Amino acid sequence: MLRIGVIGTGMIGQDHIRRMTQVLAGVTVTAVTDVNAGVAAQVGASIGATVHPTGEAVIADPDVDAVVVTSWGPTHEQYVLASIAAGKPVFCEKPLATTAEACLRIVGAEAAHGSRLVQVGYMRRYDTAYRELKKVLDAGEIGAPLMMHCAHRNASVPSHYEKEMAITDTAVHEIDMVRWMFGTEIKAARVLVPRKSRNGGDLRDPLFLILEMDNEVLVDVEISVNIRYGYDIRGEIVGEHGTASLGTLSPVHVKTSLRAADPVPADWRERFLAAYDVEFQEWIDAITRTGAPAGPSAWDGYAAAVSSDAALAALHSGERAPVTLTEKPKLYDGVPA
Amino acid sequence: MLRIGVIGTGMIGQDHIRRMTQVLAGVTVTAVTDVNAGVAAQVGASIGATVHPTGEAVIADPDVDAVVVTSWGPTHEQYVLASIAAGKPVFCEKPLATTAEACLRIVGAEAAHGSRLVQVGYMRRYDTAYRELKKVLDAGEIGAPLMMHCAHRNASVPSHYEKEMAITDTAVHEIDMVRWMFGTEIKAARVLVPRKSRNGGDLRDPLFLILEMDNEVLVDVEISVNIRYGYDIRGEIVGEHGTASLGTLSPVHVKTSLRAADPVPADWRERFLAAYDVEFQEWIDAITRTGAPAGPSAWDGYAAAVSSDAALAALHSGERAPVTLTEKPKLYDGVPA
Amino acid sequence: MLRIGVIGTGMIGQDHIRRMTQVLAGVTVTAVTDVNAGVAAQVGASIGATVHPTGEAVIADPDVDAVVVTSWGPTHEQYVLASIAAGKPVFCEKPLATTAEACLRIVGAEAAHGSRLVQVGYMRRYDTAYRELKKVLDAGEIGAPLMMHCAHRNASVPSHYEKEMAITDTAVHEIDMVRWMFGTEIKAARVLVPRKSRNGGDLRDPLFLILEMDNEVLVDVEISVNIRYGYDIRGEIVGEHGTASLGTLSPVHVKTSLRAADPVPADWRERFLAAYDVEFQEWIDAITRTGAPAGPSAWDGYAAAVSSDAALAALHSGERAPVTLTEKPKLYDGVPA
Amino acid sequence: MLRIGVIGTGMIGQDHIRRMTQVLAGVTVTAVTDVNAGVAAQVGASIGATVHPTGEAVIADPDVDAVVVTSWGPTHEQYVLASIAAGKPVFCEKPLATTAEACLRIVGAEAAHGSRLVQVGYMRRYDTAYRELKKVLDAGEIGAPLMMHCAHRNASVPSHYEKEMAITDTAVHEIDMVRWMFGTEIKAARVLVPRKSRNGGDLRDPLFLILEMDNEVLVDVEISVNIRYGYDIRGEIVGEHGTASLGTLSPVHVKTSLRAADPVPADWRERFLAAYDVEFQEWIDAITRTGAPAGPSAWDGYAAAVSSDAALAALHSGERAPVTLTEKPKLYDGVPA
Repeated sequence: MLRIGVIGTGMIGQDHIRRMTQVLAGVTVTAVTDVNAGVAAQVGASIGATVHPTGEAVIADPDVDAVVVTSWGPTHEQYVLASIAAGKPVFCEKPLATTAEACLRIVGAEAAHGSRLVQVGYMRRYDTAYRELKKVLDAGEIGAPLMMHCAHRNASVPSHYEKEMAITDTAVHEIDMVRWMFGTEIKAARVLVPRKSRNGGDLRDPLFLILEMDNEVLVDVEISVNIRYGYDIRGEIVGEHGTASLGTLSPVHVKTSLRAADPVPADWRERFLAAYDVEFQEWIDAITRTGAPAGPSAWDGYAAAVSSDAALAALHSGERAPVTLTEKPKLYDGVPA
Repeated sequence: MLRIGVIGTGMIGQDHIRRMTQVLAGVTVTAVTDVNAGVAAQVGASIGATVHPTGEAVIADPDVDAVVVTSWGPTHEQYVLASIAAGKPVFCEKPLATTAEACLRIVGAEAAHGSRLVQVGYMRRYDTAYRELKKVLDAGEIGAPLMMHCAHRNASVPSHYEKEMAITDTAVHEIDMVRWMFGTEIKAARVLVPRKSRNGGDLRDPLFLILEMDNEVLVDVEISVNIRYGYDIRGEIVGEHGTASLGTLSPVHVKTSLRAADPVPADWRERFLAAYDVEFQEWIDAITRTGAPAGPSAWDGYAAAVSSDAALAALHSGERAPVTLTEKPKLYDGVPA
Repeated sequence: MLRIGVIGTGMIGQDHIRRMTQVLAGVTVTAVTDVNAGVAAQVGASIGATVHPTGEAVIADPDVDAVVVTSWGPTHEQYVLASIAAGKPVFCEKPLATTAEACLRIVGAEAAHGSRLVQVGYMRRYDTAYRELKKVLDAGEIGAPLMMHCAHRNASVPSHYEKEMAITDTAVHEIDMVRWMFGTEIKAARVLVPRKSRNGGDLRDPLFLILEMDNEVLVDVEISVNIRYGYDIRGEIVGEHGTASLGTLSPVHVKTSLRAADPVPADWRERFLAAYDVEFQEWIDAITRTGAPAGPSAWDGYAAAVSSDAALAALHSGERAPVTLTEKPKLYDGVPA
Repeated sequence: MLRIGVIGTGMIGQDHIRRMTQVLAGVTVTAVTDVNAGVAAQVGASIGATVHPTGEAVIADPDVDAVVVTSWGPTHEQYVLASIAAGKPVFCEKPLATTAEACLRIVGAEAAHGSRLVQVGYMRRYDTAYRELKKVLDAGEIGAPLMMHCAHRNASVPSHYEKEMAITDTAVHEIDMVRWMFGTEIKAARVLVPRKSRNGGDLRDPLFLILEMDNEVLVDVEISVNIRYGYDIRGEIVGEHGTASLGTLSPVHVKTSLRAADPVPADWRERFLAAYDVEFQEWIDAITRTGAPAGPSAWDGYAAAVSSDAALAALHSGERAPVTLTEKPKLYDGVPA
């Protein structure tokens, strides 16, 4: 039974605690903390976990085998570094850290430690549809990949959603996904700006992001975050002699009123709930069996940050912006992407 | 942590043990037994469970809170009755028992006990697609139901599959499903015999089963167990002003060689794996919270047995065969179907 | 330029005249008549055709090469027989005649004439989807056929639609289609009566028609004529190792309001308009090139009438009703179905 | 009966002659010519048309009401100008002329003539799927358009297909289509160059064309001309609160070998055959009724040429290339696009 300490018991932290206590096998939550001590106390009491005053205390707790970081983004670096220093596996929700430099410090610390401890919460890699898509690609069914067309559509976004979040919060999922899908880094980014939706107020919405991969595969991503009709994630890989796309996951088909219709999910929860479960179960199983994570690495977190920065630069300049990564430590050889 | 004793550690028993130890939350397997003592010993050792010489010993074990019966069908009655006698919740894989009379004995014993202990393993009710279909129906989106068209297709069946199993093992899933879907009993059954597939050897395959529900809804079920192309479960409800059907659950869509294709599963595992997980998690949660199961009841097991017997009679006679049920004990009022 | 005389210039007659004068090649309409002389005069004037007082005069007109009969059903026999007597090709809208005996008289007259002159307006055989379905079947892609599941759904029917018309006007299309699809006669019919739709007033709607083909293929046809959501014609053939069904003919796919939807046609015009064009163009081309029709024959009209009578008998009796055909004249050997 | 003279009896000319003589109503072909006199003589004889030594002679023939130009591209300007000079309606296959300057000369001549005589063969506007897509857009079902994603995929191209033809022969269909769809001109073009397919030999294949419309709608077009799996034309319009796309036009759906598949056409004939028929029938009807065409105009031919030139410039430079049109003569006000 893997014993977990959770740093950050806000909405996402509570959801992962629910997952670990009510859904998944082989795991228990033994310690929690939060910047809001009252919330931490309440959550801790409800599951019988020790409530600590700080993240550092959670990490130091001898009844904690591994750490889950779901606190506010700017605090991620500090808790991940502390976990590495303590030699404990740590699952950090995205982003790994809020700047590329901070991500690089984590990469450096983990490389110095000499073995993997860090996993970043890019859950698309655990989604059945993306996995089956990758299987078809890797099996050569459509030949070598040449392009990928993606769309990331939200019905709406909360009022605090700002212009740059279309890249840093939304498209960053596609940024990680294509690195994993094609097993190669992003070389450059462009952002084109289509006609503006009046649903988005001051937001520049939609955007059209174009990514060049190191192997010349060209990826385009429509980012529409106020499209009203639902949450819709599309992806089609164009190969040399065929295409493969995310399929239809519609449990029911209804014919009424001159229409034959499949329901579209209202938000990401419905679409990706199962992927979160798989992500965590595989992380728990990997830590339990080998002591090290097998999912998205600190390097993936760093590369996503640098690629995302390039996309932001492209958005601001209107020009193609190159992605420049540091040399990859040997630790990350053989790790996916 | 609910403590489970498993009676029967064959293929299906081992699969449920894997589910309870590696996939689900809030459950542990503390005791096992099997008619093959060697297998029981091996399975027990692998999970640290006590190995008992008999099912009765499993049921009596004070470290067993609830029982899972996955032994050979003819032994189900005995272990379910013993669990009731011990006042312990029992999950019994289908069939509840091998005859309607035996099912009725269980119903009687449970009614005498005065509260529900028994759940039968009809897992279709836990499948996302069927649940969404029922939601659309119950919400009145297609109006009152009038007909349902079903198909139950297997790529192939094992060599021990005999003529009557098309009803008792295959169509029995639809028999339970329509009782649950429409909240009413089956009134009569007919079986028509189409042209024979040469893939089935001596088997009468396919068959076309027609069920009349108590509310006059007419259900037809194609049963094709050697159709080669894959495992395919179809269902479309025809309502007064629309239809609703099981949707498309295809994670990937591939265009190659003049064809745009969705993969079809090879067998039931791929199609219904998640339904088994949900079925067990909900059973565990219900027993933990309330001490009683909320899923398919002993009455459901009995009614399925009588309906299945009528379908067999119809197959043999070529005529319409009525379904005659005993009076339903009050215990089962308000229970689904 | 094939010169046509049209007997009956009501709605369907006018539609075929529009087709022949404004859509198709190689044809002109030179003569018309109608029981309503005013309508005939108006239609004749609009296209510059001679207006005759009787159908017999149309048939006798030396400027008429071939006859189209679109008058009231009870008059079909008389005009078809007169066309045969005159040795002129005749296209007769369904039904060929209103009784099986009358159809048989036409068969006898044509057989005595010694070559084919008569074509009956069963236009499903000219629909692209049915033709592609038959191609897949005939190519052996799904193996030998064993069953076919059909649905014939109308949004609503006019007030003069009576109980028996569900068979004689609606399902008769499926009756002809399966004879053509499987190249064999119907052996027997059953009609089951599901729960009644309240949309249909006094009508027994829906019905469930079951046809046994001479080669043991079992066909089921849902007939729902008040289903409100649209006009929907479904057909799936179950073969020994696969299935083939009428596909999706949806020119546009729209995602709005939590729904991804294909439009459903409101009525048969939208669904089968092109099939009528193909039917007539092929008839015109065949008459022009060979003097004889190649489409549905008088025998097909007779066999449909007898099969339809059996279905009516089954509806009234609740029992299986056999189809008994007279011996087929040699003239119809080698003709489809 | 509209009397047509055809200039150019090669493959496409013969196909249009077949269409006019064997498929459509209200039209006859009375005169033909071709640079290859033998072919012209053969074609003319087969349909009983006068064979002329030159295109000018066809245009001058008093038995010719309207002209169809299907000769070699570089000769189009000459025959279209001669038809205008003769005051005869002329249908010119695309391109209207081989340079923007030549197109502009035609625009000038027609404007000087004072009424429309010229129609250009952009047949996408007559395709049912594109028309239904435009209807959904124009009805406001998805809100104001913001983006359009297109794909133009050929299984393979003939050996004479050269690099620039991906724009001038292939994408030019999308160039005309989006001008018509959105009722506005193209403002600028970009071409991005993805990883190269090895199926295309020396060709730069695929390409990714990006068009900015005058109303800021952003259009992207994947051009893949060696994708092997079939001919596939995709288009999805992204609106403010929904999307609409070209639908599924699959007459049959086949389940075999672990696959549920729709057929994909092998080439454009199967996909667009009906659109050519509609295009010609509507042209014939318009000329017959009004003496003037209602379809794509000389201005459309000119604007497509300039837009196509910009796309070529963008392909060569790697940069955004603006589209600069001359002032639009009043004659073309109110004409679609």
